[in-house]
Amino acid sequence: MDKVTVFFFPDNLVAHVAPGTSLLRAASLAGVELKSTCGGDGTCGRCLVKVKDGRVRAESTGNISKKAKQAGLVLACKTLADGNIVVDIPRDSRLDQHQVLLDKKDILLEEEESLTAEYPLNPLCRKVKVSLPEPTLTENASDWTRLQVVLRNELNCQAIHISLPILRSLPETLRGKDWRVTVTVAELNGCADVVQVEAGHEESKFFGLAVDIGTTTIVVYLVDLDSGLSIGKKGTYNKQARFGDDVISRMIHASEKASGLDDLHKAVLETINQLIAELLSQYQVNSRDVQLAVVAGNTTMTHLFLRLNPKYLRLEPYIPLATAPPPIRAQELGLQINPSAYVVCLPSVASYVGGDIVAGTLVTKMAKAEEIVLFIDIGTNGEMVLGNQDWLVSSACSAGPAFEGGGITFGMRAMQGAIERVVIDRSSYDVTVSTVGGLKAVGICGSGLIDCLAQFREAGIIDRAGKMQTDIATPRMRQGDDSWEFVLVFSEATECGKDIVVTENDVKNLLRAKGAVYAGIRSMLKAVQLGEESIDKVLIAGGFGNYLNIRDAIIIGLLPDLPAEKYTFIGNSSVKGARLALLSQEAFHEAQELGKKITYLELSAGNDFMEEFMAALFLPHTDLTLFPSLGKQK
Amino acid sequence: MDKVTVFFFPDNLVAHVAPGTSLLRAASLAGVELKSTCGGDGTCGRCLVKVKDGRVRAESTGNISKKAKQAGLVLACKTLADGNIVVDIPRDSRLDQHQVLLDKKDILLEEEESLTAEYPLNPLCRKVKVSLPEPTLTENASDWTRLQVVLRNELNCQAIHISLPILRSLPETLRGKDWRVTVTVAELNGCADVVQVEAGHEESKFFGLAVDIGTTTIVVYLVDLDSGLSIGKKGTYNKQARFGDDVISRMIHASEKASGLDDLHKAVLETINQLIAELLSQYQVNSRDVQLAVVAGNTTMTHLFLRLNPKYLRLEPYIPLATAPPPIRAQELGLQINPSAYVVCLPSVASYVGGDIVAGTLVTKMAKAEEIVLFIDIGTNGEMVLGNQDWLVSSACSAGPAFEGGGITFGMRAMQGAIERVVIDRSSYDVTVSTVGGLKAVGICGSGLIDCLAQFREAGIIDRAGKMQTDIATPRMRQGDDSWEFVLVFSEATECGKDIVVTENDVKNLLRAKGAVYAGIRSMLKAVQLGEESIDKVLIAGGFGNYLNIRDAIIIGLLPDLPAEKYTFIGNSSVKGARLALLSQEAFHEAQELGKKITYLELSAGNDFMEEFMAALFLPHTDLTLFPSLGKQK
Repeated sequence: MDKVTVFFFPDNLVAHVAPGTSLLRAASLAGVELKSTCGGDGTCGRCLVKVKDGRVRAESTGNISKKAKQAGLVLACKTLADGNIVVDIPRDSRLDQHQVLLDKKDILLEEEESLTAEYPLNPLCRKVKVSLPEPTLTENASDWTRLQVVLRNELNCQAIHISLPILRSLPETLRGKDWRVTVTVAELNGCADVVQVEAGHEESKFFGLAVDIGTTTIVVYLVDLDSGLSIGKKGTYNKQARFGDDVISRMIHASEKASGLDDLHKAVLETINQLIAELLSQYQVNSRDVQLAVVAGNTTMTHLFLRLNPKYLRLEPYIPLATAPPPIRAQELGLQINPSAYVVCLPSVASYVGGDIVAGTLVTKMAKAEEIVLFIDIGTNGEMVLGNQDWLVSSACSAGPAFEGGGITFGMRAMQGAIERVVIDRSSYDVTVSTVGGLKAVGICGSGLIDCLAQFREAGIIDRAGKMQTDIATPRMRQGDDSWEFVLVFSEATECGKDIVVTENDVKNLLRAKGAVYAGIRSMLKAVQLGEESIDKVLIAGGFGNYLNIRDAIIIGLLPDLPAEKYTFIGNSSVKGARLALLSQEAFHEAQELGKKITYLELSAGNDFMEEFMAALFLPHTDLTLFPSLGKQK
Repeated sequence: MDKVTVFFFPDNLVAHVAPGTSLLRAASLAGVELKSTCGGDGTCGRCLVKVKDGRVRAESTGNISKKAKQAGLVLACKTLADGNIVVDIPRDSRLDQHQVLLDKKDILLEEEESLTAEYPLNPLCRKVKVSLPEPTLTENASDWTRLQVVLRNELNCQAIHISLPILRSLPETLRGKDWRVTVTVAELNGCADVVQVEAGHEESKFFGLAVDIGTTTIVVYLVDLDSGLSIGKKGTYNKQARFGDDVISRMIHASEKASGLDDLHKAVLETINQLIAELLSQYQVNSRDVQLAVVAGNTTMTHLFLRLNPKYLRLEPYIPLATAPPPIRAQELGLQINPSAYVVCLPSVASYVGGDIVAGTLVTKMAKAEEIVLFIDIGTNGEMVLGNQDWLVSSACSAGPAFEGGGITFGMRAMQGAIERVVIDRSSYDVTVSTVGGLKAVGICGSGLIDCLAQFREAGIIDRAGKMQTDIATPRMRQGDDSWEFVLVFSEATECGKDIVVTENDVKNLLRAKGAVYAGIRSMLKAVQLGEESIDKVLIAGGFGNYLNIRDAIIIGLLPDLPAEKYTFIGNSSVKGARLALLSQEAFHEAQELGKKITYLELSAGNDFMEEFMAALFLPHTDLTLFPSLGKQK
């Protein structure tokens, strides 16, 4: 059957697709990424588009709001193209419009720390300049034998590997500049491996990549391996987002749709290759000169990056395919750097404590600390590591997407126009908000939502169970479509032209998210038989962490009631750890050891977590003695 | 420009080619292999065809005989298709007609020796049956970690590698039969490598290949690695023949034509894959169950098999790209067996002493012998190894193609109809010949030519310098087109319908060939300061060897004048050595050591060889004291 054409306005982009293709898929093919938290299941109601012309068929209406329906919108994931059609994509439905903003608000591209004596500049991969004796009739060893003999003098290992393609190029390279060559060698697991052979001893460029694959965002650092300096950094949204917002929906897509695993693998590679291409072009670096990549990601992301099926991560007893996957060559994945470059993924601890957390643990140096450190990364999942030089335990809890804006009426990520601070007057209920970039409000991001919850509580807008006090005297409190809601910003002052509200349902979702994180911390402490007061230091990772108001987080019972000076934000510790492991073999080997050393505590294995979770669904907690600094509250 | 069609009769095969394509190339594309000793240079005059219809253009006439020209034949290599044409291929011009004969005359597919305690059945690759503990919430190591733990108990090495494709299939395989799996592991250079993982503990098939890549013929043994038995053997001509008969013309083609290296690499792979396909089909073996291949070939063949450019093998100081190439995976070459199967090439000693000779040396066990052994493989090159358990030297001399029928008017390989024995009556000059298969004579093969030379000398048909005694009284002695010639068989009794003759030029070519081999032996003996009499045993390898009349070979001065009981024919020692290394790690490692241990003597490096060669251009030699058993001759 002939293909049909789908035009997308206002982008003027076109997709040619088989009849029956969803508009969500067609948009993706045309290069327009739509919001799709549910991954095309018709449940999140975000991929709204307007069909302006042509014949479509609704697979189902899906979970579309009354308002959107009245405005003539449909869900792109449940609307199938039947003939040539013209589709209009509203601003609110787009994912990719925000990509530009990410660079302006550099939450993911932070300054790295300099290397120390502990982790000297000593990458897994290095360049060795050697001169080979010229062969004669009586000294006629082969090219490859000749090269091995001189390399062995320079390396720590006797076994030297070479791939067929590089071997094939040896004769001309060796003879190109009088038997003087510069050899890039990776020393890994006791074997040396030749990554590249160049003729001559001229200075040649030598770069590596540190890659953080987040569920939401991906960050790539281009690092000069000679100097150890990061010469460029780029971040963007993970293109996997169109298959679902969180790791669970991605796992489901990967394991239950025929092309699912390929879809997700290609999407993450495409994202990374795009960032690489931008970096190489901006800094005029030849892809051949990028000869090592260290990748940190959560266990699901690492699986999808390597095209390992994450199916069993999700099914009890939650078994990863590999926690320490073998190092591979760039060409095996199609990563657009030197085809022979090693690509190493930092090891995971378990299904829900991944290489990103191992990278973070490395950066915190907690495995060398005498004091007890709690390292916590709050996102869709709350992942945490507790311990010191003697012991390290980790666990993960599913906080849900609330802190990243998911499942919250006006939730959004920390992008321009997101409300990040909220102050509510105790008597007038007047609201003062500040937004990212100082722009008109578009929605509310994680730090703003935590502020809200704390302020609601302090102002008596909600009770300890999160129930709205509907009798308070302000027009901001009102009955909404589904539940009571409190208006933060009226439409006149918003960018979206709508009242920005927080509903009672939103509050419940936030309670569950904060309860899960706190219950995780408590369960872990219980497992090692320590109390909150034993924690000497709390390190908070993730872009979200940077903007967190610690006091508010304690007020709502998200974080333990400890003095503010014990808290430190450490930013994107995942990419920082990847960079450290890229630059220093010592750091890399330590990360490998951490992967084995950190004990994983499966919270679903005991009953403690569920008890702790139920107890944490109050503000701040059912047990107020855990929050002594908050005093008594009604 | 549109393609033209070339029809080949009587095969009814068709090639569609660009105008200007040579008929030689078109024939190859259509699947008809023509004789082409010179590789398409127009000099050997063998690729004769008749254009029956259509437009062709002669690039040049090339070196075509007057007779062929008169018969309306042209050289396929120098004749270009200009439009649709019809081509007739005479029987004599075909290479592939002989392929069937090879199997009938099993000179290359010999009985192998059984394994001994010295070389027990212990292939590089083995199957390990393991049961993994089922994971639980509290014992939740990853699939790959879980497999490694149990494998380490079974293996000799700690480092276990796995490729991404096999890793990807682990989860379903492990869970397929309750965590019981059969793992094929190769242990190589201190590392274990997972070749295959199968669900369950059922008996599974387990095969390997022993491959001998000869310049002329390729032999593949399909071996059951469980029992050590060869279950099938196939041999055929190396398809590289269309690019030239000997290693030198192949090297030139590989290094001087743009697609030359690819041509030769593809040709050898195609030949091997064809033999593999026939074996797998005949013995109903699944390609996935073939999990190891050991390959022996001369240095040029090994280079071309791996697509390593042999350019510098040919240029002084004759340096191979690699004498001990790294083991590779079948998929890297496109070898049609299990994609993850290891393919290991036996090491070479130098540019002209290859893995075939190392394989042979292994089979002779001379590296363990107390007595002094001379191992010699006579073909286009004469390759020899001399020594015992204390020392081993090797060298090679270019005998030229005469013993394989090249450069000899009626020369041919030892195929059906080839004259293999000649007796000439001393007074009447009557000739009695016997042919392979007892058929009417087609030409003369190596053993027949050696007989001829010896018989000519004994009957006084030639003098010690090889000059024909034109005054002898027989119509068999006559002036030919270019030189004097002696008729072995008159046309009435031949298959080809022509008088089969040996010319004075043929004799000169044979003298040069035998002189080179003998000079090589002498030079090597001189280098170790030993005389012929020190040799305790002479082992002669190669299909040619099997049919050699030792006495005649001594009479003409090809082989040293030693008692017949010191001589043994050992057949195709290359494929036998490959099979031994396939079945026994001990043998494989010994072959690797032999590659390093055997000293190579470059004959062109000193003056001895040239002196020896000049002295050996007589029958049997200028120095008759070297051949005491022959007595005085005129």
